[in-house]
Amino acid sequence: MTLAAPVDVSLLICRRATLNDLPRLLQLLADDVLGKNREGVGSSDPVYAVAFDTIAGDGNQQLLVAETGGIVVAMLHLTFIPGLSRRGAWRANIESVRVDSALRSRGIGSWLIEQAVTLAQERGCRLAQLTSDKQRTQAHAFYGRLGFTASHEGFKRVIDTNSNI
Amino acid sequence: MTLAAPVDVSLLICRRATLNDLPRLLQLLADDVLGKNREGVGSSDPVYAVAFDTIAGDGNQQLLVAETGGIVVAMLHLTFIPGLSRRGAWRANIESVRVDSALRSRGIGSWLIEQAVTLAQERGCRLAQLTSDKQRTQAHAFYGRLGFTASHEGFKRVIDTNSNI
Repeated sequence: MTLAAPVDVSLLICRRATLNDLPRLLQLLADDVLGKNREGVGSSDPVYAVAFDTIAGDGNQQLLVAETGGIVVAMLHLTFIPGLSRRGAWRANIESVRVDSALRSRGIGSWLIEQAVTLAQERGCRLAQLTSDKQRTQAHAFYGRLGFTASHEGFKRVIDTNSNI
Repeated sequence: MTLAAPVDVSLLICRRATLNDLPRLLQLLADDVLGKNREGVGSSDPVYAVAFDTIAGDGNQQLLVAETGGIVVAMLHLTFIPGLSRRGAWRANIESVRVDSALRSRGIGSWLIEQAVTLAQERGCRLAQLTSDKQRTQAHAFYGRLGFTASHEGFKRVIDTNSNI
């Protein structure tokens, strides 16, 4: 999916995703050098609708989209996590940041991250965090420009031995 | 707080923390080369009781402790996060892993992490993840031995400009 005209960031809107957006969200998730091997056959797979409903029904989760001209051009998944450490600080965890591959390097991702940070601040979060695959070196420079510091190692462990994620 | 006898890992029990554990949890959080500068004056600060209640009241959060002989010797904070990516996979996020500084390198931390992974598997999580400050090089080897891969960069951004965390 591409737009006929260049994207004007000032015309972007940020909103919560609805179930109607699900096919487009899955397209964005799969439109990625790493994600294309992780995602399934498409929106007809009921696991995705179940997952969407679970996220939408949880007050600490927000699936956000950036939209312009009625077209969703980017997404991310924001999670608010309460904590005991750092004097009881809430933190905002950001996952699944995706921008339409035809529309990258135009400021859309930066804009959507800043929308998420503002929402997190409004919820009282004192820290925003995300992990980025070490293969995504361009993304690392991007997050650095947005004020994120690569201060931590991000460890993952697949714990479902029946899965191939 | 130290134990009179060596810790027998086979005698450890894993349980959810209760409000009565809060002073001990704060002691463990502060008993850390990085945490000592981040945490406050102690359990009398009401922000911690509020934070504890918030965590305890959220079905996707578990503050776990390892206990032996009636003494809490380790803790961690486990969060279950629903997701759309990776075919709607839930993931388990682990924060605030602490072992009594007098009792490290005895297998307590490994044991507690494995308890958390088992709980996460029972909840259907397909991935466990955590970040570890790049200064904690010993911890990185520890997580490597537990099957975690440092595949990601862990980015953090302080978003509360009034805070000094």
